[in-house]
Amino acid sequence: MSSSQIPVAVLGATGSVGQRFVSLLDQHPWFKVVALAASDRSAGQKYSLATRWILDTPMPDYAKDMVIVPADIESVKAKIVFSALHTEIANELELQFAIAGMAVCSNASSHRRGEDVPLLLPEINADHIHLVKTQRRNKGWSGCILTNPNCTSTGLTIALKALDDAFGVKGVFAVSLQALSGAGYPGVPSLDIMDNIIPNVANGGEEEKVEWEPRKMLGRFIEREAPGTRIELADIRFSVHTNRVPVIDGHTVCASVELARPADPEAAEAILRAYAAPESARELPSSPRPVIEVRDEPDRPQPRLDRFTGKGMTTVVGRVRRDPILDLKFVVLSHNTIRGAAGGSIYNAELLVRENLL
Amino acid sequence: MSSSQIPVAVLGATGSVGQRFVSLLDQHPWFKVVALAASDRSAGQKYSLATRWILDTPMPDYAKDMVIVPADIESVKAKIVFSALHTEIANELELQFAIAGMAVCSNASSHRRGEDVPLLLPEINADHIHLVKTQRRNKGWSGCILTNPNCTSTGLTIALKALDDAFGVKGVFAVSLQALSGAGYPGVPSLDIMDNIIPNVANGGEEEKVEWEPRKMLGRFIEREAPGTRIELADIRFSVHTNRVPVIDGHTVCASVELARPADPEAAEAILRAYAAPESARELPSSPRPVIEVRDEPDRPQPRLDRFTGKGMTTVVGRVRRDPILDLKFVVLSHNTIRGAAGGSIYNAELLVRENLL
Amino acid sequence: MSSSQIPVAVLGATGSVGQRFVSLLDQHPWFKVVALAASDRSAGQKYSLATRWILDTPMPDYAKDMVIVPADIESVKAKIVFSALHTEIANELELQFAIAGMAVCSNASSHRRGEDVPLLLPEINADHIHLVKTQRRNKGWSGCILTNPNCTSTGLTIALKALDDAFGVKGVFAVSLQALSGAGYPGVPSLDIMDNIIPNVANGGEEEKVEWEPRKMLGRFIEREAPGTRIELADIRFSVHTNRVPVIDGHTVCASVELARPADPEAAEAILRAYAAPESARELPSSPRPVIEVRDEPDRPQPRLDRFTGKGMTTVVGRVRRDPILDLKFVVLSHNTIRGAAGGSIYNAELLVRENLL
Amino acid sequence: MSSSQIPVAVLGATGSVGQRFVSLLDQHPWFKVVALAASDRSAGQKYSLATRWILDTPMPDYAKDMVIVPADIESVKAKIVFSALHTEIANELELQFAIAGMAVCSNASSHRRGEDVPLLLPEINADHIHLVKTQRRNKGWSGCILTNPNCTSTGLTIALKALDDAFGVKGVFAVSLQALSGAGYPGVPSLDIMDNIIPNVANGGEEEKVEWEPRKMLGRFIEREAPGTRIELADIRFSVHTNRVPVIDGHTVCASVELARPADPEAAEAILRAYAAPESARELPSSPRPVIEVRDEPDRPQPRLDRFTGKGMTTVVGRVRRDPILDLKFVVLSHNTIRGAAGGSIYNAELLVRENLL
Repeated sequence: MSSSQIPVAVLGATGSVGQRFVSLLDQHPWFKVVALAASDRSAGQKYSLATRWILDTPMPDYAKDMVIVPADIESVKAKIVFSALHTEIANELELQFAIAGMAVCSNASSHRRGEDVPLLLPEINADHIHLVKTQRRNKGWSGCILTNPNCTSTGLTIALKALDDAFGVKGVFAVSLQALSGAGYPGVPSLDIMDNIIPNVANGGEEEKVEWEPRKMLGRFIEREAPGTRIELADIRFSVHTNRVPVIDGHTVCASVELARPADPEAAEAILRAYAAPESARELPSSPRPVIEVRDEPDRPQPRLDRFTGKGMTTVVGRVRRDPILDLKFVVLSHNTIRGAAGGSIYNAELLVRENLL
Repeated sequence: MSSSQIPVAVLGATGSVGQRFVSLLDQHPWFKVVALAASDRSAGQKYSLATRWILDTPMPDYAKDMVIVPADIESVKAKIVFSALHTEIANELELQFAIAGMAVCSNASSHRRGEDVPLLLPEINADHIHLVKTQRRNKGWSGCILTNPNCTSTGLTIALKALDDAFGVKGVFAVSLQALSGAGYPGVPSLDIMDNIIPNVANGGEEEKVEWEPRKMLGRFIEREAPGTRIELADIRFSVHTNRVPVIDGHTVCASVELARPADPEAAEAILRAYAAPESARELPSSPRPVIEVRDEPDRPQPRLDRFTGKGMTTVVGRVRRDPILDLKFVVLSHNTIRGAAGGSIYNAELLVRENLL
Repeated sequence: MSSSQIPVAVLGATGSVGQRFVSLLDQHPWFKVVALAASDRSAGQKYSLATRWILDTPMPDYAKDMVIVPADIESVKAKIVFSALHTEIANELELQFAIAGMAVCSNASSHRRGEDVPLLLPEINADHIHLVKTQRRNKGWSGCILTNPNCTSTGLTIALKALDDAFGVKGVFAVSLQALSGAGYPGVPSLDIMDNIIPNVANGGEEEKVEWEPRKMLGRFIEREAPGTRIELADIRFSVHTNRVPVIDGHTVCASVELARPADPEAAEAILRAYAAPESARELPSSPRPVIEVRDEPDRPQPRLDRFTGKGMTTVVGRVRRDPILDLKFVVLSHNTIRGAAGGSIYNAELLVRENLL
Repeated sequence: MSSSQIPVAVLGATGSVGQRFVSLLDQHPWFKVVALAASDRSAGQKYSLATRWILDTPMPDYAKDMVIVPADIESVKAKIVFSALHTEIANELELQFAIAGMAVCSNASSHRRGEDVPLLLPEINADHIHLVKTQRRNKGWSGCILTNPNCTSTGLTIALKALDDAFGVKGVFAVSLQALSGAGYPGVPSLDIMDNIIPNVANGGEEEKVEWEPRKMLGRFIEREAPGTRIELADIRFSVHTNRVPVIDGHTVCASVELARPADPEAAEAILRAYAAPESARELPSSPRPVIEVRDEPDRPQPRLDRFTGKGMTTVVGRVRRDPILDLKFVVLSHNTIRGAAGGSIYNAELLVRENLL
């Protein structure tokens, strides 16, 4: 490990999001993976033997011979832990790691609604990271918990941010067409999705997340004297339908948007194309380049063709057009296990380091 | 042919919708297929040799040895012609058949907007069929042109009719997930849709159809002295996104609806379940039984599991729930090549017979 | 229940093969379902509530309100029990039902290799059913156990039987492309099979079954004084590769065959087309009509288009051609959950009744 | 263009294989693309506008603004032309380019059987490239035609070469499961392949290619005085079935092999793993690293997971086991549009340069 590298760990390293963490952390310029943690069933085995690798890029060499450790604070010694844990487990376990002084960058939904927990997409609300100071004061721990949003909220919220800054967003109808990898592994049985779509995700909960999370991320960070620092939820109404479709990676969202200051599609496209991340989030190793790509073709973005735009970190928008009822309609695509999960958590960790909050 | 059977023909009989006509007309109690017409390239060949059959039910025996005739009024002698022609060809050719005294039941979009052309879903607007009297008077022909709507409009409009009668529909956001068979054969290349969705259908035109056609079908039939009889378009606003998904048959639509008299989901479900077709459309051979089926499960309707409900003629609705912005959200499924195409045209023809308008 | 109807039960009624039993037994002319049995977890619930129905034909009305009973001889009182149990459970449980006097028609592999257990495809080895007499004598029970083969063995063996009778089969190379439903539900995860094939089935065991089972079914039934009655395995060598492919239903097998008396493809096609079941198996309710269908097209059979031939009971053969090394090459298709599983067990039961062996 | 770069052109640059050429030639260390040629319909347009890009890696920047030229010798000035032309066109056109002094590295099948045309897989028969000297003498041209084999022959032949060197291969049964991209674009209609397989490729010709091409590539290069230099076909019998499956990229082949000197699976695996390319083909820019990868898992190789091994140039072998009739069974996977098409042609061109035959 070079002296400048920060020791990190992955919790839930054998699952589908865990594998993305392992893959994206390969040769990371700042982070060095020192522990891969998983359930007791896998602990003690070599990562290459305990993992049913499902990515189409090969397992990185560094990980193959690492011996999996239990996901507890005795076994995992790192400065940052990336959590790909299931929600039920994450809730309690992430607290323990924070108490033990580690920075938890979590992909689980457990703590997203915490009043002092940043729900972060650095390219749009990098300032929210300062909530960790409040969190540390409130909780009395030296670690912290940072969260990234639901994979379906991710791309949609980034596109909305650009529009909100320019025109003010008041209401959003959104319908998702979500990829299979969002359900983890083994996830969706093939007999359920071949020649089929499922008009609900996880049989509940997903729509509520996508109706609430963007409001926190688009909300205003209000810095006050303790304990008054908080996020004021954005005053935007959301109506969301979620669907599962037979696509491996890449969530598509069809959105209709009401604006405070109506704009025509050309103006909106220009705003989306010109959108730049806050200064602190621009030049990090995982910064999307560009943040938003706008496609001109009448039938793009498409998940298979566009999900790897900007190495899977870019939000791709297309079909920006007038909405016959509200103001604008468009389509958003985001890679759900890269920008919407593992890549997002890593980007959050990079921002934490950049802001000297580690 | 029994004395009571009506001679019918299929135009465009070798294509994907044409095949559905051939299949659904097998052993029809009222109709007897006397001619299968297709392009000059196929004319003169046996149907079984000229057709690349793509349905998973076998080609009916009656059709196998029929010799395909050209799609012109010299070659086709029938009382009713079912048109599965492409729009470009249908426009002119359907007129010729009507002039020649035949009843054209068309699946093409060419004449749907004609002021004196019924756009029919018998279970909701059977009364509109009387527009053919005006049509005959205006055009001076003894034949007629009847149309059925776009396959994506079909299920959505049927569900909206039940709600409109009970609560008044004012606005609709709809996002479709449309099956491959809607694009005909060869249609969508496999490399375009495997592990993918396409966020536009036919690169344009589809959304406009679904934003307009329901307004005509839900509109009021105003009978006046000639030439005043007409359809008054329903005053409902529509915003529609259309998508192509890797499903063979069955179009799914996610809808959010604004009502004049807000209703809770339970009341809406009861209304949908109780919906009955107008008396004249209830007991026809192709009448859907039931018109609408409401599913209780959190993840239905699904195209693969529900598309054959009521032999593919029933509209299946599920996930009726509150909409956080408007009033109700729900999901609609309809078999696009049965209820949404060939089955719909046949149902229209049955109503024409039933109303003594042939 | 009409006086002539025989009470039957389904064990493992909620699974994928169990559902096929429930569906195929709907309005069966001889059998009346009196019990649906499943694991203790489901017992006590209504079938419609306990079952995640995955067939695209609706759940039969008769089954919906039946209360699931435990799969034990106290709870299940029937003359015939159809077993869709997993192998591990089937092994012991089927014995108990046989001891209790019931005829067990099993789709499980547990007892297929039993020396006194018929492994039956009535259209080819109906005479083997008389092995149940030996079985009853050996075991001292009044019930019996009948088995049907692995779904991949099924179609292949039926085609081979016709060729063996006419030309003598000496060796077979076979490569399968097997459908997802063969793995049950939830079975194959979608992430494993989308845009993919898996070059092994169940990670072992499948190839050995397909290399052995046809030899028993094509073997000679040698009737001797007790305990000498037995099946002499056919002297045919098999080499089998099995693959899983993204197809819902319908197993395809590519076969190359060595014959004792070489035949040209035309002669082989004629023999396959003319193949008739043994007299006792010809006119049963589930008898395939025809036993074998031979397709002429260069690209058939195909699972989606041909699996329902003869209501899913017919074996479809195509591409009969010379093999450059052996004698003949061809392709066989069989519906794996109808002819290859539930339909096969029911056909076996019908033969048992027909032969007065119940 | 650096002084050391060789000007190359792509014929048929807009099609699916053409796109792979354009992609793989991006930043090639030796070659510089100076012309993209396509049909007259596209000529004159910018490549980015004329091409429906179907790869999931983005179109390289260098190509976007290149103006497509007609595929004729007046318009294309290069030292090497890569041909992704359809066979019918390739036959005549490739001759013209060779006469005009250019080296044609062709993916078309037109000239593969030419007695003085190398059919090359450099990692196994690099010596065959010297046939171009005979070709030049025979034809009196300064250009040349080099071919790479059918995409299904490719991986199979590479695996056979290693076994043949060590144990002598006498006979091969092979069944392919071929990807959709092998059929080009638009290629296979989605309605033909969703929930389906097609037990024939291109309705004929494919099986004959795979039964003949390996014999030439595994044949002996016999250098004699003019005009006696030739390839002696290997004395190996092949029986091949080809199938199309719903996989985007990556052809899988199940093979059973008869050996002259029988070997057990462990010995065969060791030989496959240790296989090295001829010295001249080892260190070229496109050389596969390794030539063959052997997987230990019971269910590998799989196209989605293994097709990019060695950047898509490596042949992946798995499930090496005893064959109950012959000697060995195994599964081979090769990326059909990289190693099996564009990547193969480029590798051939590199060998031509390395051998100073350009």
